[in-house]
Amino acid sequence: MIEKMKEVILEMLKEAVPGYLSGEGIAGKLGISRTAVWKNIKNLQKAGYVIEGSPRLGYRLLSVPDLLYPAEICEGLETEIIARDPSLVYHFAQLATTNDCLKELAEKGAPEGTVIFAEEQIAGKGRLGRTWSSPRNKGIWLSVLLRPNKPLEEISVFTLLTAVAVARSINKKCPDITAGIKWPNDILIKGRKVCGILTELKAEADRLHYLITGIGLNYGAASNDFPPELKEIATSILLESKGPPPARMVMAREILRQLDSIYHDYLNLGTEEILKQWREFNITLGKKVTIKSLRETFSGVALGIDQMGALIVAGSGGGQKRFITGEIIN
Amino acid sequence: MIEKMKEVILEMLKEAVPGYLSGEGIAGKLGISRTAVWKNIKNLQKAGYVIEGSPRLGYRLLSVPDLLYPAEICEGLETEIIARDPSLVYHFAQLATTNDCLKELAEKGAPEGTVIFAEEQIAGKGRLGRTWSSPRNKGIWLSVLLRPNKPLEEISVFTLLTAVAVARSINKKCPDITAGIKWPNDILIKGRKVCGILTELKAEADRLHYLITGIGLNYGAASNDFPPELKEIATSILLESKGPPPARMVMAREILRQLDSIYHDYLNLGTEEILKQWREFNITLGKKVTIKSLRETFSGVALGIDQMGALIVAGSGGGQKRFITGEIIN
Repeated sequence: MIEKMKEVILEMLKEAVPGYLSGEGIAGKLGISRTAVWKNIKNLQKAGYVIEGSPRLGYRLLSVPDLLYPAEICEGLETEIIARDPSLVYHFAQLATTNDCLKELAEKGAPEGTVIFAEEQIAGKGRLGRTWSSPRNKGIWLSVLLRPNKPLEEISVFTLLTAVAVARSINKKCPDITAGIKWPNDILIKGRKVCGILTELKAEADRLHYLITGIGLNYGAASNDFPPELKEIATSILLESKGPPPARMVMAREILRQLDSIYHDYLNLGTEEILKQWREFNITLGKKVTIKSLRETFSGVALGIDQMGALIVAGSGGGQKRFITGEIIN
Repeated sequence: MIEKMKEVILEMLKEAVPGYLSGEGIAGKLGISRTAVWKNIKNLQKAGYVIEGSPRLGYRLLSVPDLLYPAEICEGLETEIIARDPSLVYHFAQLATTNDCLKELAEKGAPEGTVIFAEEQIAGKGRLGRTWSSPRNKGIWLSVLLRPNKPLEEISVFTLLTAVAVARSINKKCPDITAGIKWPNDILIKGRKVCGILTELKAEADRLHYLITGIGLNYGAASNDFPPELKEIATSILLESKGPPPARMVMAREILRQLDSIYHDYLNLGTEEILKQWREFNITLGKKVTIKSLRETFSGVALGIDQMGALIVAGSGGGQKRFITGEIIN
């Protein structure tokens, strides 16, 4: 309830920008005491909002923090499914991993479109059981819950779809950057990884219960923020931008919007449309690749992806192979 | 510890059959008091073991209960993965569902091959969110945990594999019964369903975390044990047997053995071998079918299954369709 009041006062301050609102005026409108107003203003300031207080003029909002608060993220978002309402969006200063936290919510019946942001993950996970470095405020660490009524065999398409949404968001909001997708869903800028995607799911053999897509986008990390073993192979939006990059919140909002949009494309137009969009961003097809799968390591030329999202590779020694999963290691 | 002692005493009694063991002898061998022996004997009797106690001769095991106790199930089982050790087998008088219980164990790191039996499920589940009637002692309700290092796309093969193991067990232990498999994994006897299989899983897009196969085999149920809406479409081993069927434990053991064996075939020989074995038991191919999938209802002739286990149907109005999931409703 106190949280809610804080949000309402923030809303009033935002509407008044660049003007002032008197404490008395806020108190009267909300039917609370001036002390209660003052307490809420204090809490907003603690949360990072810069609010000027003048005994004569009242309160004035000077800036909002670059933290991924639900109320900020959802402002003007206008998505239909993903984060369609601020009540579906959660924000944490710190989590073990956003995927694990969202899994708990999913098990308790959280609706499709629920989103979790964390400023920091202390046990961030990558694909194949790897760790994912997720330092405080340096990235956009989020997870999205979907409950599509689709067969399990289309799961690969989801990982492609998420990659398209992120690549498109980067290229749109950072026109001086060109982000591409390495099969299946690594986002690379000039050959270095800027974003990883980890899709996890619960299912029956013939029914998807839910799907959680974790996105880890390195954003404000400087070179020194990466552990030594990643310095040569990882990058961030900050490192690749010529000027200062847009606020994290702007990018986070764009990712939710693009995800919402391409998820609609998938539901309405099917897998073919997603594969088409993925091909536009891909940097794998036509190249020499060495792919490591559960069974083998195989080298050749990446010819294309099939209707399941599997990579078709023409072997150096002749013959073609199809990889539904695997990792390109060159 | 007390549980363990009970097991040890049971083992001693079994070895002595048809002879007696004196309470004093047992106590001496185990370094416990005669009262402790007596208490353990009482507990074994409570658990359904018929043990005769004679003041002069001692104790003698007359019969073991037809309950699916780990120690009994594992006797002479000699499987390599599934239930390879009694410590991997759990028995409960009552559970909500064996799948959900095993899921909790799986999350805590239970090893591959862990098995749960329940005498009764009060919230038994079927495919597609349906309920599964699982009355006390009337069926074999079990779940098996597997952790194969296989791609997610082979999940359909698992559901086929389990069906083959169960159908083969029934046909072997009840020579007067012919059980067949309706695609993908319903076990039918004379057109009535005797067993359902529910496969659930947790995965990443390209890595299976674990797989839980629930098997519900109607065993000792009389016609009146079925709810009215199932009487015409369900059956049990008891109902289909001419004479008295083998003890539930004999069948449960056979199912574990067959599952272990075909799981090895799958790991060593691959999906083709499983599909071949499945075809031997199938009662769907070559028949007219109406199949309901997520997208549509489609009628035609079931032509075959492809390498993914998908059903190929030749439409009545021409054209072929492929169903990776769905339900045959005729």
